[in-house]
Amino acid sequence: MLILMHAHATRAEIDGVMKHVRGHGYEPVELPGADRIAIGVLGSHPASIRDNVVGLPGVVDAIPVSKPYKMVGLEWHPSRTVVRVGAAAFGGPEFVVAAGPCAIEDEAQVLTTARSVLASGALLLRGGAYKPRTSPYSFRGLGVAGLEMLARARAETGLPVVTEVLTPADVAAVAEWADMLQVGTRNAQNFSLLEAVGEAGKPVLLKRGMSNTIEEWLLSAEYVLSQGNPDVVLCERGIRSFETATRNTLDLSAVPLVRSLSHLPIVVDPSHATGHRHLVAPMALAALACGADGLLIEVHPNPDEALSDGPQSLTLQQFGSLMADLRRVAPVVGRQMAAVSVG
Amino acid sequence: MLILMHAHATRAEIDGVMKHVRGHGYEPVELPGADRIAIGVLGSHPASIRDNVVGLPGVVDAIPVSKPYKMVGLEWHPSRTVVRVGAAAFGGPEFVVAAGPCAIEDEAQVLTTARSVLASGALLLRGGAYKPRTSPYSFRGLGVAGLEMLARARAETGLPVVTEVLTPADVAAVAEWADMLQVGTRNAQNFSLLEAVGEAGKPVLLKRGMSNTIEEWLLSAEYVLSQGNPDVVLCERGIRSFETATRNTLDLSAVPLVRSLSHLPIVVDPSHATGHRHLVAPMALAALACGADGLLIEVHPNPDEALSDGPQSLTLQQFGSLMADLRRVAPVVGRQMAAVSVG
Amino acid sequence: MLILMHAHATRAEIDGVMKHVRGHGYEPVELPGADRIAIGVLGSHPASIRDNVVGLPGVVDAIPVSKPYKMVGLEWHPSRTVVRVGAAAFGGPEFVVAAGPCAIEDEAQVLTTARSVLASGALLLRGGAYKPRTSPYSFRGLGVAGLEMLARARAETGLPVVTEVLTPADVAAVAEWADMLQVGTRNAQNFSLLEAVGEAGKPVLLKRGMSNTIEEWLLSAEYVLSQGNPDVVLCERGIRSFETATRNTLDLSAVPLVRSLSHLPIVVDPSHATGHRHLVAPMALAALACGADGLLIEVHPNPDEALSDGPQSLTLQQFGSLMADLRRVAPVVGRQMAAVSVG
Amino acid sequence: MLILMHAHATRAEIDGVMKHVRGHGYEPVELPGADRIAIGVLGSHPASIRDNVVGLPGVVDAIPVSKPYKMVGLEWHPSRTVVRVGAAAFGGPEFVVAAGPCAIEDEAQVLTTARSVLASGALLLRGGAYKPRTSPYSFRGLGVAGLEMLARARAETGLPVVTEVLTPADVAAVAEWADMLQVGTRNAQNFSLLEAVGEAGKPVLLKRGMSNTIEEWLLSAEYVLSQGNPDVVLCERGIRSFETATRNTLDLSAVPLVRSLSHLPIVVDPSHATGHRHLVAPMALAALACGADGLLIEVHPNPDEALSDGPQSLTLQQFGSLMADLRRVAPVVGRQMAAVSVG
Repeated sequence: MLILMHAHATRAEIDGVMKHVRGHGYEPVELPGADRIAIGVLGSHPASIRDNVVGLPGVVDAIPVSKPYKMVGLEWHPSRTVVRVGAAAFGGPEFVVAAGPCAIEDEAQVLTTARSVLASGALLLRGGAYKPRTSPYSFRGLGVAGLEMLARARAETGLPVVTEVLTPADVAAVAEWADMLQVGTRNAQNFSLLEAVGEAGKPVLLKRGMSNTIEEWLLSAEYVLSQGNPDVVLCERGIRSFETATRNTLDLSAVPLVRSLSHLPIVVDPSHATGHRHLVAPMALAALACGADGLLIEVHPNPDEALSDGPQSLTLQQFGSLMADLRRVAPVVGRQMAAVSVG
Repeated sequence: MLILMHAHATRAEIDGVMKHVRGHGYEPVELPGADRIAIGVLGSHPASIRDNVVGLPGVVDAIPVSKPYKMVGLEWHPSRTVVRVGAAAFGGPEFVVAAGPCAIEDEAQVLTTARSVLASGALLLRGGAYKPRTSPYSFRGLGVAGLEMLARARAETGLPVVTEVLTPADVAAVAEWADMLQVGTRNAQNFSLLEAVGEAGKPVLLKRGMSNTIEEWLLSAEYVLSQGNPDVVLCERGIRSFETATRNTLDLSAVPLVRSLSHLPIVVDPSHATGHRHLVAPMALAALACGADGLLIEVHPNPDEALSDGPQSLTLQQFGSLMADLRRVAPVVGRQMAAVSVG
Repeated sequence: MLILMHAHATRAEIDGVMKHVRGHGYEPVELPGADRIAIGVLGSHPASIRDNVVGLPGVVDAIPVSKPYKMVGLEWHPSRTVVRVGAAAFGGPEFVVAAGPCAIEDEAQVLTTARSVLASGALLLRGGAYKPRTSPYSFRGLGVAGLEMLARARAETGLPVVTEVLTPADVAAVAEWADMLQVGTRNAQNFSLLEAVGEAGKPVLLKRGMSNTIEEWLLSAEYVLSQGNPDVVLCERGIRSFETATRNTLDLSAVPLVRSLSHLPIVVDPSHATGHRHLVAPMALAALACGADGLLIEVHPNPDEALSDGPQSLTLQQFGSLMADLRRVAPVVGRQMAAVSVG
Repeated sequence: MLILMHAHATRAEIDGVMKHVRGHGYEPVELPGADRIAIGVLGSHPASIRDNVVGLPGVVDAIPVSKPYKMVGLEWHPSRTVVRVGAAAFGGPEFVVAAGPCAIEDEAQVLTTARSVLASGALLLRGGAYKPRTSPYSFRGLGVAGLEMLARARAETGLPVVTEVLTPADVAAVAEWADMLQVGTRNAQNFSLLEAVGEAGKPVLLKRGMSNTIEEWLLSAEYVLSQGNPDVVLCERGIRSFETATRNTLDLSAVPLVRSLSHLPIVVDPSHATGHRHLVAPMALAALACGADGLLIEVHPNPDEALSDGPQSLTLQQFGSLMADLRRVAPVVGRQMAAVSVG
């Protein structure tokens, strides 16, 4: 930490800060400059000491110099994590696509979608049984009945299932049916839920909070890892900005940036990020090109009748076409995708 | 809802949309314009129908024309709600100040603070026993032990207590000790928690999510009201913007705006909004001047040793001085604050 | 500047950075910590040296520790600047209100408004003759004819005139007619214009760029001061955020924050900030309460027929009522406003 | 336009609005709904009529239903514009890369860079002779001397030159030396400058304002086209958001979105968007993959000694490597890039 003193700080004020720091058991070093004196605090110290210092007389600011996260950081864990869910491996050479409807509506919808995305090359089936909805009057999911439909689709297709869990009390039930637990953007700093999924022993798909900095997002992942669960896949899904022409602002630069800071895999959800069907395929290709480990794509057999998020869902045919495009680009950017026999 | 057709939409496309709307049981009306045709959909209809329409051929956009909330809206409930917590009444003529430490640290800290803010004219005691922290390595509160300390402070001072609850499983325990349940900014769209506090039968202090629009915030309040709990006080506490010189960007215009949209009381938390002690008093006065129903203020007997949020906490003396300023301004802007005998 | 080395930086990398810094003529100091080594660079040095360092091998980041502005800073110029325009003095004990129409439309409109706002207690007349408009098809002002109308209103009422200038080529003409030159939000980083108004020898009203940090805004003011013109009044007028319910997000905390950083006066424009007539008066009172030196208010004799910004303009009567409210609050928050004989 | 009346609007209020609309020469249509009455206004009408209506008694809101731009819109001009600058053609099948230093520093720097980026396959040379700088104390460019160096580099390499112009008074001088005029992000709503470059008869590279919505950006382009200059290339360069880990937030979804709204070519500047060298190549590939027509890349022979923007500049070798990657990906996403003989 570096403590900046006011240009006209008195000797007594400087000594007061030095004494304060020593009183907390840390070693201060005076750094005289042309304009002012700064005080370096050596060694490892908790963030709270900064809070205590900035209000002292003569102090202009105190600048922390360590990253607040540990276990998720590439600096301390230089080998990349690979998260396995069924046959899929996030974070390895393969580009992993999870696809399915926003909300589970009925068995025919799930089965039709599952068969089709499997044929197109998806490695996971996604679908919501518990839906967080901004309005209490929107369709909020089928609950356990929806989980059962997902499980039947898995039984028939072999696709592992990723689905959202909304509250700690539901974690056990969802973990029983699902292969991967999704924490949504509105719960990205629901720390009770993060700890609960950390304890559940299943891989976690952690969406970025729509107003979370990358540092906050990594700290949310640190909550899961600190419970002994190393299997976290990060998912960039767009952030809030002043632009309203897209549903969110897809922060795709987060992909290479997170890969330079953390060893965890990172995937992209272009469906929620853009909110418009015609933008999904271009941004999916962009995600592949900039180094993402995979995608989460909303697909619906009949988007214009969907109970949730129809405008951003691809048709089954559009999804097949996108997968063909991805398969063509993947090897050119150093990624693997298995060929699919569309017959 | 108003559906905008493309300037070159064909007759068949227009007819397709008309048929689609009728197929959902609603009545479309064609509205020819100079450039294009629009289609009005009359009557009350669910938001989901918009989603279904925007992907149809020839459609440019579909614009909803109703507010999505009902019970919280001033349009449907024109008399203002007054929320009573002990002797305090939010939403009436009185300007209500809740004060106390960010986190409960020990009994002496709570009691000292409670006595002092009572003497200065606060009507509620605030303090965190369960703390949501961005990092898993920060101090996260004393839990039930902290709640007991709050209860002892209430027993001695008579001040009702407002404290945060983080997860549905804790609602019963917190409701047993507290007079008002606080839902924090990171849980503002934790819908399970909103329903749980809605069922708990205690007044709720609902902070605005740091990236929530005012409409989303009112919908979160609607979750609580829809459980049969009318006693919600909204709390503006700053939103995310590009400006980093303050901890958040205090959106004070939200105060008169919310008062024009909703009958619920609204208070302001200038401590979290600004993050800097020297900005708290000016923004507290501004909140009073623009029509807020009260304040939430962080106060600590020794901010430079606080375990949480020290830089934004007022000293007991600074708080007393702020209360004196508020008492001077209140009657001039049409508010009441009881005189306090500082003896 | 503090240079942070990677936790696993080699001795050679550390030495390389030390040598690089010395090669630019500055003195590095090694600061060993528990996790990593940091390198302090003493003395005054240009910002560019930071750019050169962050790309060197082993460097994680380099943190500047000085404010980039000088002449506008309170640290170096501790007495507050008072900017005089006619009889008005921004930055002194008086609370100064400038009022008038968004755009000058015709002589009757200007004169009617000028007489009325004078009677209500305004100290300056504002009005746009050159209007920056997002669309090339919107009304863009009357130009010199509008300036002449403003001058006639000044001749009759004695109110000094503040009006916007859009481009360096117009500065001389506008400076001939106006008493104070306004630089608008879209030109807040038009550095050629800032220098031109700096040279013009007239007081400058500098609006905050809608996406400018407070530091950037102060640097724009520094452009004007660095041309030898000390008479700058800053104007907070709302920033861009995700919230669309108001036209902009009024960052009112900027008022006390700027006053703690700079000696320049600061006023608030609640009309552009909120975009809604019914929010103007509450936010004007809030601005007064948190320490602003004055206001800029849009007033129109007949807002529903205004050529520009009608929805946010007050009627003459509403403005009179607001001024009466301000006069009642001002003395309670330590400000002066002259009594007005409304007869 | 659709005018929404209050749920409890009186018949007199509804009639008042109908009369007001007719008084402006437009035809209103009453649209009764379950909750409230709406009033449609048929035909083409100016945006200003909306402003006049929203303040009338009983009106809740008025929703415009036309795009405010015309000439830049794909709806009215369905064939894509191709902008030719020397041998480069933006908006056609070829993917066009412009490269060069942020600021022109000396002749050796420019020539070395020009030769190298030519050899790597760049089609234009970029470089700043007039630099907009946030601080008046930063290096602000060599001016005409810099333009001459660019011209000499063009003479030797044949690369056409794109460079920024800051103010209308400089347009003629810059247009004399440059092949394409760049309008920077801080001038994106400097309407005087937009008109001046519109009149200059040279192709224009129009960067998005850092807080401009896509609609505002297209309206800025409309300013140039409305002066009779159809040759505008849009450049996405990142927008302001709360995230500070990157210099700006690259809004890459803007690429396919703009292509669905406008016929103008669009390129991406990943250097300014990210601000970090190691993020430039991934985001350049992503831009190609999502449909951009080209790139603007900062390259410097010795970034660690650059006078401006060193941390985001590629070395000559890194640029060559990026171009090789782009050439490999381009054909797979339907784009052409000429092979380069690196000999």
